[in-house]
Amino acid sequence: MPSYAAPIRDTRFVLDHVVGLDRYTNLPGFENATPDLVEAILTEGGKLAAEILFPLNAVGDKEGCTRNPDGSVTTPTGFKQAFDAYVEGGWTTLHGPTEYGGQGLPNVVAAAVGEYVLSSNHSFEMYHGLTSGAVSALLAKGSDELKQKYVPNMVSGKWTGTMNLTEPHAGTDLGLIKTKATPNADGSYAISGTKIFISAGEHDLSENIIHLVLAKTPGAPDSSKGISLFVVPKFLVNEDDSLGDRNAVSCGSLEHKMGIHGNATCVMNYDGATGWIVGEENKGLAAMFIMMNAARMWVGMQGLGQAEIAYQNAVHYAHDRRQGRALTGPKEPDEKADTLFVHPDVRRMLMEAKALTEGLRALMLWGALQVDLAHQAATEEERQAADDLVQLLTPVLKGYGTDKGFDVAVMAQQVFGGHGYIWENGVEQYVRDARIAQIYEGTNGVQAMDLVGRKLPMNGGRALQGFLKMVGDEVAAAKDNEKLAGIADALEKASGQLGAATMWLMQNAMKNPDHAGAGAHHYMHILGIVATGLMWLRMAKAATALIEAGDGDAKYLEAKLVTARFFAERIMPDAGSLRRKIEGGADALMALDPDMFLAA
Amino acid sequence: MPSYAAPIRDTRFVLDHVVGLDRYTNLPGFENATPDLVEAILTEGGKLAAEILFPLNAVGDKEGCTRNPDGSVTTPTGFKQAFDAYVEGGWTTLHGPTEYGGQGLPNVVAAAVGEYVLSSNHSFEMYHGLTSGAVSALLAKGSDELKQKYVPNMVSGKWTGTMNLTEPHAGTDLGLIKTKATPNADGSYAISGTKIFISAGEHDLSENIIHLVLAKTPGAPDSSKGISLFVVPKFLVNEDDSLGDRNAVSCGSLEHKMGIHGNATCVMNYDGATGWIVGEENKGLAAMFIMMNAARMWVGMQGLGQAEIAYQNAVHYAHDRRQGRALTGPKEPDEKADTLFVHPDVRRMLMEAKALTEGLRALMLWGALQVDLAHQAATEEERQAADDLVQLLTPVLKGYGTDKGFDVAVMAQQVFGGHGYIWENGVEQYVRDARIAQIYEGTNGVQAMDLVGRKLPMNGGRALQGFLKMVGDEVAAAKDNEKLAGIADALEKASGQLGAATMWLMQNAMKNPDHAGAGAHHYMHILGIVATGLMWLRMAKAATALIEAGDGDAKYLEAKLVTARFFAERIMPDAGSLRRKIEGGADALMALDPDMFLAA
Repeated sequence: MPSYAAPIRDTRFVLDHVVGLDRYTNLPGFENATPDLVEAILTEGGKLAAEILFPLNAVGDKEGCTRNPDGSVTTPTGFKQAFDAYVEGGWTTLHGPTEYGGQGLPNVVAAAVGEYVLSSNHSFEMYHGLTSGAVSALLAKGSDELKQKYVPNMVSGKWTGTMNLTEPHAGTDLGLIKTKATPNADGSYAISGTKIFISAGEHDLSENIIHLVLAKTPGAPDSSKGISLFVVPKFLVNEDDSLGDRNAVSCGSLEHKMGIHGNATCVMNYDGATGWIVGEENKGLAAMFIMMNAARMWVGMQGLGQAEIAYQNAVHYAHDRRQGRALTGPKEPDEKADTLFVHPDVRRMLMEAKALTEGLRALMLWGALQVDLAHQAATEEERQAADDLVQLLTPVLKGYGTDKGFDVAVMAQQVFGGHGYIWENGVEQYVRDARIAQIYEGTNGVQAMDLVGRKLPMNGGRALQGFLKMVGDEVAAAKDNEKLAGIADALEKASGQLGAATMWLMQNAMKNPDHAGAGAHHYMHILGIVATGLMWLRMAKAATALIEAGDGDAKYLEAKLVTARFFAERIMPDAGSLRRKIEGGADALMALDPDMFLAA
Repeated sequence: MPSYAAPIRDTRFVLDHVVGLDRYTNLPGFENATPDLVEAILTEGGKLAAEILFPLNAVGDKEGCTRNPDGSVTTPTGFKQAFDAYVEGGWTTLHGPTEYGGQGLPNVVAAAVGEYVLSSNHSFEMYHGLTSGAVSALLAKGSDELKQKYVPNMVSGKWTGTMNLTEPHAGTDLGLIKTKATPNADGSYAISGTKIFISAGEHDLSENIIHLVLAKTPGAPDSSKGISLFVVPKFLVNEDDSLGDRNAVSCGSLEHKMGIHGNATCVMNYDGATGWIVGEENKGLAAMFIMMNAARMWVGMQGLGQAEIAYQNAVHYAHDRRQGRALTGPKEPDEKADTLFVHPDVRRMLMEAKALTEGLRALMLWGALQVDLAHQAATEEERQAADDLVQLLTPVLKGYGTDKGFDVAVMAQQVFGGHGYIWENGVEQYVRDARIAQIYEGTNGVQAMDLVGRKLPMNGGRALQGFLKMVGDEVAAAKDNEKLAGIADALEKASGQLGAATMWLMQNAMKNPDHAGAGAHHYMHILGIVATGLMWLRMAKAATALIEAGDGDAKYLEAKLVTARFFAERIMPDAGSLRRKIEGGADALMALDPDMFLAA
């Protein structure tokens, strides 16, 4: 039977000793995030995840959602009750702005507990998950009227939000969308068109659903420069804030998917639905990117969430399952066989899963902190440095985070042997669920292009330079400590590969932009390795200090040092081969005519 | 809509110019494998796969199998008719021995067309697929009576065979099995116990099912040295070869699996079923390994089969889907957008899929030929050299072949973006189906241990030395040809990494066998890269010669050279990082106590 327990100790270690939450108590929002409150949030959130949400994870996978003949959608058994408890407990409001009823806590705290919710029930989390992004877009670009009308109920969880971008023929290339927005006399618009892949597009969990929809106004440029953003509620909202008529938007069908069956992925039909513009005409893409960037970090967190639950279950299985004997002789001669832990190849998978999962946790929370600092830090210089990191790391957290989240889930499944292929053991669901995170909110290829094509050259490469300097400084400071020298040396080498790959791209992309495109995915992975390696250096440093101070659980801290070493020896070497692949350039990649691919 | 076409041209290229079938016409079985017959087999097999089996692939995934209240199992709609056509067409008999009604064609020819069957319907193929292995075990170890009784109908496809190894508590560690075989007075045995994960354990396709079952006789050693092999028919067979009573073996339930839903994976209950011993008491494992080794190569072929169909569909999607513009400016300005082929990161995935799929095809068929040569080659020296390659490469074909088969399926899915996550587009099924091949017939970790622990040291390392010499000779012969120098140089480097990794393992495994276990998986992958690289060198050489001779389709041959270059630049570099990881050894891997893994 699968199980889940929130990794609270590890979250605390990261928040306290890697992110260093106590350094920011002077900033708005952070003053309330006292150690006691954070501890209470993690404990209660962990309990909610383990006791309420996790038991529904398999239910959601098995039952899926049902579209009823009237177009309404019924979520899996138990989801409605759980959602009520989730809203009741205030879990939707953690990071919400206080002026709209939120608790105004730091993003990093909300992210920490968000991991638990995603681990325990990815599909469930998505019903509220997209709402935060929708709120960000409304707050940034919406009129005061729209904000007042929609944001409070979205923050409270009474209503949920969606993102409506994709159409059958238009995914990455949003310039191709056909959905039309025709102005009405009263300043609203009539929205018509079909959107697909709309997560939580229709369901029975909340009283209203607030769709943010991309559409084109009459005469708008026939490109991504002609896109506007609209808010289209499922139920119109009356002057007195009561719910009015049903709007002309409905779920046409549910998709049959590989995973995340518990979430309703809808085809949404807009038949002259009434909508209101968010921001200016033809400036919709910029508004949507406010949503997207928040969503991308959050999808990276899904990678971590799936990695964690898959890893936990693999560790439990390795404890329970006895098979064969250690190569060095029986470890438990009185038993019929040793546990799976004695087998080095099982260890290889478990240690890689551990090193990636704990590394990603630190990276995700450090990234989440940068979002706070980009807005709240005391000086313009600090805010800019944090914003540079947010810009640079968002595609990495999403792309590397979800690629590795999937890899970890697959490795965890492999630990189970044949039992990993069986539904009842849970882990095959985590593999299927984890897979979507590499695809949606911009495929990981799109993330890689965003990184190489946009984020790298931004401000003359300032963000990467700042990051490399940070890595260099921390490596230099760690080298003399023999406990840290191994991870510091490996990080220095990987960082050198990153620098060399950057140089190669800069020199060659000028000649031919395809060279940048050809190397983008590998480059994103090198940056992911270096960024996660930096986290491991920091974790090793913190663990060393705590051990020296005799503070904390010695075995837990010792495990951090061992895992840092594993990361250095077993994961960092990939940076070298990735750099060599990048230097292969685009020639072989682009040489074949499209009709030369199939050998049939 | 997914589609499939058998890659006949590529198979022919491999058979004619890489495997060089015409060099063996003097050997038994090969004399009948004339180019015309091979062409006819591939054409007709390709037709069967594309027209009959492929349309049932999605049906099988959707419907799955049904266990009826009486314990019988109904296969998906259409499977029975297709199986009849499959048997009728003689497809089960290709490589079957002529003295038992088979066609006696070379293994390599059967393997070539077997790929098509596996691509088009992995689940369907498995109903007959395990029969060949069961036949091999009966032929090698069974009494004449058993052979006469069972083999002809198994070759003809009238009956199918199964392998019954796994029990709930005993997978890799077969020494733990509890199934009992008690001698009856008439020389038969009464078999009692529970077996799980039995592919095609019960179904409605054939008149009888012949189970090969591992069990322990009374007083047998309580280890893998106490295992015997039994043949247990679903229906007892009368003296006159008519079917008699139902034996006391039945399907207790069907597993709920991630994929291969069209195949019935059964829990099999043996309640004093009548069985007959195959070979001697307590020598069952050796007999079972005859089955296993044949099955492992065949599972490697499943990796190729899934890679091919996933790749084909991704290429079609890239043709059909228009999204965005080339980085170098619009390629088709009259269209709203360019096809996916213009995007380097899509190309990266398609080229990697192509390089791996075509490389694996050559490797699988070359491996299949070695099985023929190990038995049929003219001289003892040739037979031994071929057998060395079979021994060395079997775990690599299985382990590397299925790891890469899965990777290709995942990459192909990624090319589809969000549409790849949707059931109707087919590719997500290929990912789920491909996943099992990394797990069953010995997990890929077990393959890696077989390679490093058994195959590498065998005969003082003769097999690997022979392989490395072959690579070295071919590299040396190719270096002066400028068309081949790139792939030859890269192969030389990768082969050097293989040599260095081998040295490291030899020197360090003596001190601590965990060092070998810790590096085994990576070592298997280096050997896979080098072996596939050798195939690419041979394909590039053949293509170069054909181009010079003005023979064949110039674009197809040019694509081979480009893809060889891609393999050299974009896949071979992994050998270096894998070697470095191996040199990390076992220390960090084995350092943690089992209770130090979870950070919760």
